[in-house]
Amino acid sequence: MKITLSYGGGGEETQKLINELFYKYFDNEILKKSEDAAVIETNKKIAFTTDSFTVSPIFFNGGDIGKLSVVGTCNDLAMMGAKPKYLSSGFIIEEGLEYSTLEKIVKSMSDELKKIDVKIVCGDTKVVPAGSVDKIFINTSGIGDVIKENISASNLEVGDKILISRDIGRHGAVILAKRYGVETNLESDCKLLWDEVKALIDAKINIKAMRDATRGGVSAVLNEWANSSNIGIEIKEENLKISDEVLGLCEMFGFEPIDLANEGTFVVAVNSEDAKKAEEILKKFNENASIVGEVVEGNRVVLISPWNTKRVIELPKGELLPRIC
Amino acid sequence: MKITLSYGGGGEETQKLINELFYKYFDNEILKKSEDAAVIETNKKIAFTTDSFTVSPIFFNGGDIGKLSVVGTCNDLAMMGAKPKYLSSGFIIEEGLEYSTLEKIVKSMSDELKKIDVKIVCGDTKVVPAGSVDKIFINTSGIGDVIKENISASNLEVGDKILISRDIGRHGAVILAKRYGVETNLESDCKLLWDEVKALIDAKINIKAMRDATRGGVSAVLNEWANSSNIGIEIKEENLKISDEVLGLCEMFGFEPIDLANEGTFVVAVNSEDAKKAEEILKKFNENASIVGEVVEGNRVVLISPWNTKRVIELPKGELLPRIC
Repeated sequence: MKITLSYGGGGEETQKLINELFYKYFDNEILKKSEDAAVIETNKKIAFTTDSFTVSPIFFNGGDIGKLSVVGTCNDLAMMGAKPKYLSSGFIIEEGLEYSTLEKIVKSMSDELKKIDVKIVCGDTKVVPAGSVDKIFINTSGIGDVIKENISASNLEVGDKILISRDIGRHGAVILAKRYGVETNLESDCKLLWDEVKALIDAKINIKAMRDATRGGVSAVLNEWANSSNIGIEIKEENLKISDEVLGLCEMFGFEPIDLANEGTFVVAVNSEDAKKAEEILKKFNENASIVGEVVEGNRVVLISPWNTKRVIELPKGELLPRIC
Repeated sequence: MKITLSYGGGGEETQKLINELFYKYFDNEILKKSEDAAVIETNKKIAFTTDSFTVSPIFFNGGDIGKLSVVGTCNDLAMMGAKPKYLSSGFIIEEGLEYSTLEKIVKSMSDELKKIDVKIVCGDTKVVPAGSVDKIFINTSGIGDVIKENISASNLEVGDKILISRDIGRHGAVILAKRYGVETNLESDCKLLWDEVKALIDAKINIKAMRDATRGGVSAVLNEWANSSNIGIEIKEENLKISDEVLGLCEMFGFEPIDLANEGTFVVAVNSEDAKKAEEILKKFNENASIVGEVVEGNRVVLISPWNTKRVIELPKGELLPRIC
């Protein structure tokens, strides 16, 4: 069975799609009220974010566009010290998509939501004529209760330590491999990060800044931080964990792992006294978590090789890999 | 100048687009913090909604996809008795779109935001290869403070009166005309509705249910209400206001005005004692506002002609007009 334009017409078939697919997998009382907007209760201070997902291919090692759409937005909330609570979902579907493909994606979203007790409370579905969109795009926006305040890219001070929660570049490398037909067992890092963040908050780690290294990779995060806080950052190359598969793919296609997108990997800056403790906590979730560098005087991001040579890491330029997320 | 893939890469060109275009038009302190999520303060009880806009053509009489993306989401909040406060914006742009076209759309959003004191506090921009999307799609999600509680499609009781805020079918008819190359001076009704809603709330009108008649038109709203409240609705055909241009286009293409989409027209159900007062208030905003019918026993929506013949109005079937919004 294929999705036809009538599923997006706002009439009988749209109601059927909502009742038989979305209410089945995103089952909750708020959504099922079917009003123009969901009425919800929150803390007075909330985090709010949005992300559109256009990843191609829509299924990849370690995830799919559905899982990614939940993980990506929940992680953006977590990075601001907020417990993800409510999501919206906006589907734009190409006429002719198999119903079973849509169901697989929706089920994948539902599986992810259950891991973190987050509810999709409002949604929108558009079906557009064949050729107006490539298969399916999903937007999710999210609301979270702020648990820890004042996490900001502008907080960094000289001496703060920089940690990365795991090995880098997996999501970008997986999409790269699939796009160019390279066989690999590598899986995307696509994963909810709230548990790691909560563990850091519970342990009263002084988190200065925190960001998941999605598009633009670790390079983009560090450069944005250097820019926002007007400081320099030095990273020891030997402390960056990179899997052999990612390294191999980067060599094959001429990419830098530090520029590649991640979807379940974050960079966190803490004050120097808390760094070891933060590393220990993060290692419980992934053995590749490590302190990778520190904040210094200056305004550039510098990578120091094991032989002590220095190389400036800039904000990535150009389009590394379109439709990575 | 054209938008290239690199504008969506998350690196230097993405930063340039954000700084030079989005921050220029959506200027506010929360957005400019450039964090993964916006941290905002709200009432404890909020309304939350989302909508993706895929309208084609992107510019039409009375509006464009940018204006529509602000109006559509703000109106969904207003329909739940919530003052729109914060929006997210997610752009999916086709590689090759003219920069000036994007700027025109963004400016149009900005103009609309200023009318209602709503801020875009978070956003996301994806650029996808030519052919992966048709020109530009925009998702907006919105948060509003609930001012009046308990507005719901399930509140209707026999005797309640149904009002429509103006003449119907304009937005659908405008898109229809433009799609098929029919010259017309007709303008879309695309307009923010918060002022009208606020006036009803301020006058302490007992609003039972309220919904803007977008995709599926007035037919869809009334059928959803009949279904949710398990009641019947009778509408007097002579009380439905329809412009000559909309009637003409409907005759030409075989549509029913009551099925056509609107983007600044709402249906409101009030208890019978408040109906006249509500009509007076709405007439101050549009002279075509009127009481059109009432809630009755039964479970169907019935249109009564001036000659007292009755016709059942069903939920529209099939795809009336793809990419209407």
